[in-house]
Amino acid sequence: MNTAFPTLEDIQTAHERIQPFIHRTPILTSSAINEIAGCEIFFKCENFQKVGAFKARGAANAVMKLSEADKAKGVATHSSGNHAAALARAASVAGIPAYIVMPSNAPEIKKKAVKGYGGKIIECEPNLKARETTLESVVEKTGATFIPPYDFMDVIEGQATCALELIEDQDNLDIIMAPVGGGGLLGGTALTAHYLNSNLEVIAAEPTGADDAFQSFHAGKIILQSGPNTIADGLLTSLGVLNFELIKAYVSDILLATDPQIIAAMRLIYERMKIVIEPSCAVPLAALLANQDRFRGKKVGVILSGGNVDLGKLPF
Amino acid sequence: MNTAFPTLEDIQTAHERIQPFIHRTPILTSSAINEIAGCEIFFKCENFQKVGAFKARGAANAVMKLSEADKAKGVATHSSGNHAAALARAASVAGIPAYIVMPSNAPEIKKKAVKGYGGKIIECEPNLKARETTLESVVEKTGATFIPPYDFMDVIEGQATCALELIEDQDNLDIIMAPVGGGGLLGGTALTAHYLNSNLEVIAAEPTGADDAFQSFHAGKIILQSGPNTIADGLLTSLGVLNFELIKAYVSDILLATDPQIIAAMRLIYERMKIVIEPSCAVPLAALLANQDRFRGKKVGVILSGGNVDLGKLPF
Repeated sequence: MNTAFPTLEDIQTAHERIQPFIHRTPILTSSAINEIAGCEIFFKCENFQKVGAFKARGAANAVMKLSEADKAKGVATHSSGNHAAALARAASVAGIPAYIVMPSNAPEIKKKAVKGYGGKIIECEPNLKARETTLESVVEKTGATFIPPYDFMDVIEGQATCALELIEDQDNLDIIMAPVGGGGLLGGTALTAHYLNSNLEVIAAEPTGADDAFQSFHAGKIILQSGPNTIADGLLTSLGVLNFELIKAYVSDILLATDPQIIAAMRLIYERMKIVIEPSCAVPLAALLANQDRFRGKKVGVILSGGNVDLGKLPF
Repeated sequence: MNTAFPTLEDIQTAHERIQPFIHRTPILTSSAINEIAGCEIFFKCENFQKVGAFKARGAANAVMKLSEADKAKGVATHSSGNHAAALARAASVAGIPAYIVMPSNAPEIKKKAVKGYGGKIIECEPNLKARETTLESVVEKTGATFIPPYDFMDVIEGQATCALELIEDQDNLDIIMAPVGGGGLLGGTALTAHYLNSNLEVIAAEPTGADDAFQSFHAGKIILQSGPNTIADGLLTSLGVLNFELIKAYVSDILLATDPQIIAAMRLIYERMKIVIEPSCAVPLAALLANQDRFRGKKVGVILSGGNVDLGKLPF
């Protein structure tokens, strides 16, 4: 297993590796939102990404880097969400099996997506312990390679390609914002920004109802998330170990947003930009709007992480 | 008033005239929807247009063509929807007043949009008679120029610029589909297609619950819409006289879609394309999916007309 953090060249090579399997997503702007926010925002639309989320990047990178022998035995993971669909699709593209351990209460739309890509779902109780033991037994039986959702070098390297495109397409940014759950997207984003432009600040955004990254950042050590309670259902997990190292080194701050602020930002994006995003995706704009002084007059790249939302359960 | 149909040169000049005030909207595709539909669809995304609908084109064109003397007195219209916001915005850009007669039951989101652009709303009873008399008295009092929503040459000329962009950006289409309400977008689309490529078929789509264009098309004379009943609230009006002339000359067919088909197509677009559209906008895809044999293997341009939907009242 790869244990060193990716170099810029590694990230650029990963981008070439996954390019045939992902979209170069567009950057959208909204003059109405800029006016409300008092700054200039460039939204990197990973909601338009394959499988509807940035997770397509990391999963494709991890799968395509496997040896032929390992590929033959397939891949496995536990995930309640977008990583599951992303890994199933990457495996399907590579022509290998994907074993996905999912909590029994995972959203129907996300189960359907995994099945649609030919992934084999193994259900378990909705807690981390059950996920881990179920996954272990799947790996033991099949010999599949475990591809973790975020705390894994090849996944972080893949997610880092998102900021690579953003900075290439919009080279005058002052700040990049990304949401933080496990920290795969944030870690990768911070690493790329660090390599390409040392003046470019990376600021994370997290729901107040699942603020383990905020707590960990200020404590200087990982504090596990317990009892998360937020509409941003993609950001419930605790920070990964590798991810935390990157965050400590290259992220300048973590800002919080409450659920009402997240819902208001989500609605603003639907109404003004006419695009579909999932709640987790609205957290950076919510945190920005709650801290406007900090961003006034700046050029801010905001990564819209995904668009897989249960339309029957929109919060408005 | 201009009474001859616009020439190709007129439409191209209109496009240059309004270019500073509108977006050149993107064309999006979805491999998932193509697979479901059995043809290749190119969605022209007028939901991303200024004011969230193609109506920005016709309104801008009509306002910018006014003499300075007429401009000074302002513009007026009656509209329950996107034309209202579009005219208010065009007037605001031109620095002139817009008087908008709206039925008292118009959606809150559309009233808000008009006010946001500085339009002056004059409410009336929700019927055509009340709209017309209220408008007459406004025009008498102010001297404003009435800009009708669709049955008006300069508006048709403006709407015709949408197909101009679509055909320029995607020059191998077999068919273009547009929804039909009053027929401004459809008439303009058919005219442009006729000029640019005589092999390019234009097929309209209409809700079964407001099928006056379908009835008129087959009867060879205008049959007024009475008691429309459909979720596609942008398509409730009767066909315009000028629009019907263009439809008879250059539209090859009008296909119908039921409300459940419209809602399913709308949901498909939200889920697979991650974009926000209003129900009227889903009618062409719904009609296409209900008539798949006719489109099999073809390259079909579908105009997504607008994205102004009350998010609190989505039908799913």
